[in-house]
Amino acid sequence: AKGDDKNGEESGNEPEWENILSTFTTTSVLSDSAREKIMFLHGKMAGDEAVVVLEKTPIREDSLAELFRDSKLRLDMRNDIYSSYRLQAPSHLNEIKTTVVCPATEKHVKKYRRQESFLVEETGDDYRSVTLPYIQEQSLSLQWVYNILEKKAEAERVVYDDPDPEVGFVLLPDLKWDQKQVDDLYLIAIARQKDIKSLRDLSSEHLPLLHNIFHKGKAAILERYNLPASKLRVYLHYQPSYYHLHVHFTKLGHDAPGCGVERAHLLSDVIQNLQTDPQYYRTRTLWFPLRADDGLLGRFKEARRL
Amino acid sequence: AKGDDKNGEESGNEPEWENILSTFTTTSVLSDSAREKIMFLHGKMAGDEAVVVLEKTPIREDSLAELFRDSKLRLDMRNDIYSSYRLQAPSHLNEIKTTVVCPATEKHVKKYRRQESFLVEETGDDYRSVTLPYIQEQSLSLQWVYNILEKKAEAERVVYDDPDPEVGFVLLPDLKWDQKQVDDLYLIAIARQKDIKSLRDLSSEHLPLLHNIFHKGKAAILERYNLPASKLRVYLHYQPSYYHLHVHFTKLGHDAPGCGVERAHLLSDVIQNLQTDPQYYRTRTLWFPLRADDGLLGRFKEARRL
Repeated sequence: AKGDDKNGEESGNEPEWENILSTFTTTSVLSDSAREKIMFLHGKMAGDEAVVVLEKTPIREDSLAELFRDSKLRLDMRNDIYSSYRLQAPSHLNEIKTTVVCPATEKHVKKYRRQESFLVEETGDDYRSVTLPYIQEQSLSLQWVYNILEKKAEAERVVYDDPDPEVGFVLLPDLKWDQKQVDDLYLIAIARQKDIKSLRDLSSEHLPLLHNIFHKGKAAILERYNLPASKLRVYLHYQPSYYHLHVHFTKLGHDAPGCGVERAHLLSDVIQNLQTDPQYYRTRTLWFPLRADDGLLGRFKEARRL
Repeated sequence: AKGDDKNGEESGNEPEWENILSTFTTTSVLSDSAREKIMFLHGKMAGDEAVVVLEKTPIREDSLAELFRDSKLRLDMRNDIYSSYRLQAPSHLNEIKTTVVCPATEKHVKKYRRQESFLVEETGDDYRSVTLPYIQEQSLSLQWVYNILEKKAEAERVVYDDPDPEVGFVLLPDLKWDQKQVDDLYLIAIARQKDIKSLRDLSSEHLPLLHNIFHKGKAAILERYNLPASKLRVYLHYQPSYYHLHVHFTKLGHDAPGCGVERAHLLSDVIQNLQTDPQYYRTRTLWFPLRADDGLLGRFKEARRL
């Protein structure tokens, strides 16, 4: 349907307008966030299982003039100097990003379904009797980590590299960061030492490594991105998502996933705790969230620890 | 302009459609969030200073059928089973919530302007030489807290009340929680003891109080909201927003403002640290974020500690 397009978009070689969703019937809402204006749906599309993700688009500064000129508003509430309206904008200024996975498998559906999480209490003994055996059984491959350390993969993405086998590490952007702006900066420092699975393995003998990551990591970020230490949050996860010591560097103010107090541990606190008690993380009770479908949660339930 | 309304809305006593924004000229974007699809603007409206807040509305399950039926989509990308589109919806299904403050004062503009925050390092000595004098000078009134403790205010909102002068506390919803759903549950426990300003004042003598808040608070929430301890995040802020001991109870998974590792301290960690070192929080170096316009940040700069 070429020809003039009343939204003022040139209608040269743009793809056709269509309505592939007209055949979509919703089976269930997998999850949604009112805060992020996003909704994950499971349903059927022309006979196939499908997952549809609807996400409102951010408000763009460069469309404000047109938005103000061509929108209409209806008053909702007025109170002294405050008033609120429902604004209806021209649709081309207010699109909804729609992602479709079709045909979708049960794995896709599971991935997007909101997972309730549970806060688990793990004593030092719990770690040795429940968590450690589970990690060892899983024995998830760390070859991709070693490829990075040995420059067999992602070498071009490395921001800083300390080759020392004891205290050295590699610093590179996290996959979640598109590196377009410093506002949501997210880098990972991967330790070169291979036998440190998590916070639980750390003792005062690792202080030189931790200090090195902390100071050289911040210095490298200051130099490359001109971001001072006072703008950085430097922390470890417990439980980590993979069992090879790595430290997260994120911009303060950017609420990166996983920077909540229930999972993140400031590296500066870890260093201080080990300085006063070399065995701090071997004897401590630690709390962490686990998703409902996490195998480790099942182990804690079997051990009657939840 | 009564009469039929092509968006199918009955046009009985609805307010008129108008475009009050057509006279708005933008001076600056105060702050915005691509994640939350919200933008705060400062500008002029018919000669007056004004602040305008534009926020996309959450996707509503009850409008999905109509959205699928009446929208049009344009293909952006297709790769195997994955495809993404730009969806244009009927405008009445995709409104933008618009809040206007007009005439706006410099105070309004400052309130909405994104504040850069700085991570501050405070040793035990820094607390005594920089922070404590500053807090005492501010001497912000705590009368509103005492009104709650003495049932002179908000008595009807109290969820649980332990009258014991030593270990007692009052538990009530935080103002940020609309109490409509448990998903973003947020309660505050305010200690009855009056002389505990913050984490820095805590020592092992306060363990009975902390235990009492921790266990009775969780029990009261289980009973009132049927939410077990494994679904709760229980923590203190440092720096707190007011200097009278209070503990935050929020639903795990709800990323409540202030639950980041740079400001929140799990009560369970605080209890454990005081059990092993009664002076833990008097001697420790603590890190916390301060906004650029915070007077305490100025003190740290004057003391050359930033």
